[in-house]
Amino acid sequence: MMFSTQTYLKRRESLKKQVSKGVVLLLGNGEAPINFRDNTYPFRQDSTFLYYFGINAPQLAAVIDVDADRTVIFGDELTMDDIIWMGRLETLAEKAGKVGVTETLPANALPAMMQEALQRQRPVHFLPPYRPANAIRLSQLTGIPVAQLASSASVELIKAVVAQRSIKSAEELVEIERAVNISVDMHLAAMRLAMPGKTEQRVATEVHHVAQLAGSTLAYPTILTVRGEVLHNHHHGNVLQEGHLVLNDSGAETAMGYASDLTRTFPAGKTFTSLQGEAYEVVLHALQTATQALKPGTRYLDIHFLSCRMLVEGLNQLGLMQGDPEEAVAAGAHTLFFQCGTGHMMGLDVHDMEDLGEQYVGYTDTLPKDTVTFGLKSLRLGKELQAGYVLTVEPGLYFIPELIDRWKAEKKLARFINYERIEAFKGFGGIRIEDDIVITDTGHRILGQPLAKTVAEIEHIRSEAF
Amino acid sequence: MMFSTQTYLKRRESLKKQVSKGVVLLLGNGEAPINFRDNTYPFRQDSTFLYYFGINAPQLAAVIDVDADRTVIFGDELTMDDIIWMGRLETLAEKAGKVGVTETLPANALPAMMQEALQRQRPVHFLPPYRPANAIRLSQLTGIPVAQLASSASVELIKAVVAQRSIKSAEELVEIERAVNISVDMHLAAMRLAMPGKTEQRVATEVHHVAQLAGSTLAYPTILTVRGEVLHNHHHGNVLQEGHLVLNDSGAETAMGYASDLTRTFPAGKTFTSLQGEAYEVVLHALQTATQALKPGTRYLDIHFLSCRMLVEGLNQLGLMQGDPEEAVAAGAHTLFFQCGTGHMMGLDVHDMEDLGEQYVGYTDTLPKDTVTFGLKSLRLGKELQAGYVLTVEPGLYFIPELIDRWKAEKKLARFINYERIEAFKGFGGIRIEDDIVITDTGHRILGQPLAKTVAEIEHIRSEAF
Repeated sequence: MMFSTQTYLKRRESLKKQVSKGVVLLLGNGEAPINFRDNTYPFRQDSTFLYYFGINAPQLAAVIDVDADRTVIFGDELTMDDIIWMGRLETLAEKAGKVGVTETLPANALPAMMQEALQRQRPVHFLPPYRPANAIRLSQLTGIPVAQLASSASVELIKAVVAQRSIKSAEELVEIERAVNISVDMHLAAMRLAMPGKTEQRVATEVHHVAQLAGSTLAYPTILTVRGEVLHNHHHGNVLQEGHLVLNDSGAETAMGYASDLTRTFPAGKTFTSLQGEAYEVVLHALQTATQALKPGTRYLDIHFLSCRMLVEGLNQLGLMQGDPEEAVAAGAHTLFFQCGTGHMMGLDVHDMEDLGEQYVGYTDTLPKDTVTFGLKSLRLGKELQAGYVLTVEPGLYFIPELIDRWKAEKKLARFINYERIEAFKGFGGIRIEDDIVITDTGHRILGQPLAKTVAEIEHIRSEAF
Repeated sequence: MMFSTQTYLKRRESLKKQVSKGVVLLLGNGEAPINFRDNTYPFRQDSTFLYYFGINAPQLAAVIDVDADRTVIFGDELTMDDIIWMGRLETLAEKAGKVGVTETLPANALPAMMQEALQRQRPVHFLPPYRPANAIRLSQLTGIPVAQLASSASVELIKAVVAQRSIKSAEELVEIERAVNISVDMHLAAMRLAMPGKTEQRVATEVHHVAQLAGSTLAYPTILTVRGEVLHNHHHGNVLQEGHLVLNDSGAETAMGYASDLTRTFPAGKTFTSLQGEAYEVVLHALQTATQALKPGTRYLDIHFLSCRMLVEGLNQLGLMQGDPEEAVAAGAHTLFFQCGTGHMMGLDVHDMEDLGEQYVGYTDTLPKDTVTFGLKSLRLGKELQAGYVLTVEPGLYFIPELIDRWKAEKKLARFINYERIEAFKGFGGIRIEDDIVITDTGHRILGQPLAKTVAEIEHIRSEAF
C-alpha cells in the first residue's frame, strides 16, 4: 500500500529545496535476525525511507543528488534462484516507478557512488543510524567509524526531514485515524475481556489479536498491567484481582506504517473504588484541560505545565499535596506522582522521528531540551505547535513505592507533599489516560472514534462485561 | 523459567572439558530496534547463551576462563532511576546465582578482561555473530574488523557447542514436546478455521493467536499459503478458494526458547481432488518411509535420498517422471519437484544452531556439505544420527512454474521427466508434510500428540469444519 506517485515526488522535491547542496543518502532497513541470520523479525521499513520512497522492502538505499537533481534507488533485483524460493514478485524497478523514481541500480553500485562524492568533497548528508546493521553499512560507505556516526549525521538533513514529517497531510491523517480506530477496538476488547482471575497476558493477547484481525500490527510493545506505576512495564505475569486498576497502553500500526497510541485505565472489577474514582477524575481533568488548550502557536511546554498544575490542584484536593500549585510545579513537586512528559509527536513512529533526536523533533535552537531536570528530561515535546502536528496528551498519576520512600527519607519538598497521607497509596498503582490529537488551523481535533473515558462510560462497559 | 542450577553447572563443566585452553566469550543478545532505539522487537536471548546460562535478559555477556576455572557474567545492575521506570526486578547477581554463577561484574569490566587476555596472547574463543549489534560489540572487544569476525570464530568452540547442544536431554525433550503440542493445536485451529472466502492472513492470525494463548510465541514466521510451491512465502494476501491446497508451516516456541516445526497441507474445501489426493499420498509415503528408517548410526543424507526415491517412485506412478528412481535421484531429476532438503536439526532454534554453521551442525570433516548441487545445497543435515538428536522430516512436492519452464526449455534430464504431463500441474501449488522426531537408542519417536496426517484424517476434520 502506497500513496500516489505525486505524493512521493512532491515530498522529495520539497526535501531537495531544503538541503542546500550535496548528496542525501537514505538507508532502508534490512531484515533483523532473531536467533540466526535467516530467522527474522517481521520486517519494518525505516520511517523516513517510507516517507520519501514508500517501498516496503528490505535492504534498499536511496541517493538524492541535490546538485545533479538525480534520484537513485539501490537494491538487487531477484535472481532466478530467488524466484524459485520466493515466487515472481514485482521488480525493484516497478516498485520504484510507482513512487516516481526512474533510476535503480544494484546494491553494489552504491559504494562507488559514495566514494566519488566523498573524493570530490561534496557534502554527504545522512541521518543517525539506530539499527546496528545500518551503522555498519554507513560506516563502510562513508569511512566514518561506527562510534562517530551519530555525531557526523547531517543536522541540515535532520532539520529538513523533521520540518516536513512534522506536518501531517490530509492523506496521512486518514491513515493515522485508521490506526487510532483500530486501537479503539483493541481497548474496547480489553475492557470487555478483563476479569478478576484472568492474567494480564491473556488480556494483552486479546489486544494483539484485535490488531492482527484488522490487518495491523502493534505500533509498540503493549503495556497492560495492574501495576501501572511501573512506567516501562512489558511484563504480563500478574493475575487481575478485584480492586486492581488495569492500565492498558497499546496502539496499532497500519500496513502503511502509521501509528496510534492510546491509554485507558479501568477497574478489574465492575467499578472504581471511591479513591480510585477520585484519582481518576484528577487525571481526566488534567487531560481535558490540557487538550482544550491545544492550538497553533501554543508551546507544548506550557501545555505540559498546565497539565501538571491540574494534577497538583487535584492532588491538593485529595490531600496528597498542599500549597500553591504553580509554585509546586515550578519546584518539581508534582514529579513524585507524574515523572514523565505530558506527550509526544506521533506519525510513522509512535514517538515520531525519535531516531532523529528529541532536540530536533520537540525543541528548537531557542528552546533547547532540558536534559537534566527530573520530569522535564522525559518531556519529548516542548516547542510551539503548528497546524498539522499530531501528538499525544497523556497525563497520569503513578505511586512508585521506591520513589516515595526515597523522597520521604530526604523530606524532599515537604512543604508541598503530605508524606503521611501518601503511605496509603503505596499499593495504588498508576493511572494514565491518553488521546491522539491533531492540531488544526483553529485549535485541535481528537482523532478516532470516541473511546470510553469518563468514570461512568468505563463503568458502563465494565458492568456489561460481567 | 529455567532448568535446575545443576543443569547449567553440568553444561558448563562439560564445555570446559572440551575447550583445551584460553577464554570462552559468549555474548547474550540485546534489544533489537524496530524504528527507533527504544521501540524494540520482542526480546529473544541468544540460544547458546540460554543453553549455558539460562538467563533471559538483554545485554549480558559471559566469560568462561578455562585455565583459571572462573566464570563471570557481565551486565549492569538496575540503578534507582531504572527502578523508577521498570520497577524492582531480580538483580543480575540473583539471576546468576540461580544458574550457579557466583561472580558478576558490570558490563564495562568486560573490555579490560578481554584486553588482558589478548595482551597475554591467550586464545579467545567466540562464536560467529549473527546480530549486527553483537558484531560491533565483538569487534570492539577483540579489535577484529566486523567483516573478519565470522572467519575468526573459534572452530574448537563451535564444535564443542554443537556436540553438546545436538544431544537433547530428557528435560529438553519435555520442553520440545511441549512446543510440538502447542503447534499441534495451532494446526488443528487452522484446519478448522480455513474456508473458501477467508484470507490466508485470517488463518495465519488464528495460528499465531493459539500460540499466544498458550503463552508461546512463533518459532519462525508462519508460512500459510495456497501457493505452497513458493518455498519462502511469508505473504498472506491470497483468498482461499475451493480447489486450493492450503500449506501451513508453523511452529511454537516455548517460554524457555524451545522450538517446534510442523507442516500440514489440506484442502481449502472439504476434500482433496483426486489428483491432489494422489500427490498427497506420494508425499505421505515418502515421509513415512523416511521416518521408519531413522535410527542411530544411519546417515541423514541417506534418509534424504530414500525420501527422494520414494517421491520419484510416486511421481513415476503419477506419470510425471519415468525411468529408474535410483538413477533419477542420482541425476538430480527429482529436484524439479523437490528443491530442498528432507529435514534439519531442531532445538533452541528451529534450524538448530544454524548460526554456528551448517557444516558443523549437519556434516563432518569426512562428510562435508555439498554447497553447489541444486537440492543438496539446501540439505541442512547429512551426518550420521545419534540418540538424542531432534530433527524434522519434511518431504514435499512443489510445482514451480518458472522452474518447470526453465527446465523444459533446456529439455533438462528429459529421460526422467514427462514435460507434457507437467503442464497440467502448473497451478497445482505445493504439498509438504512435516513431523518433529527424536532419535532414540533403538530407533526414533515422533514427538507430540498425533496430528491428522492421512487423507482420511484430514478430510474428517475438514468436513467437520463446514
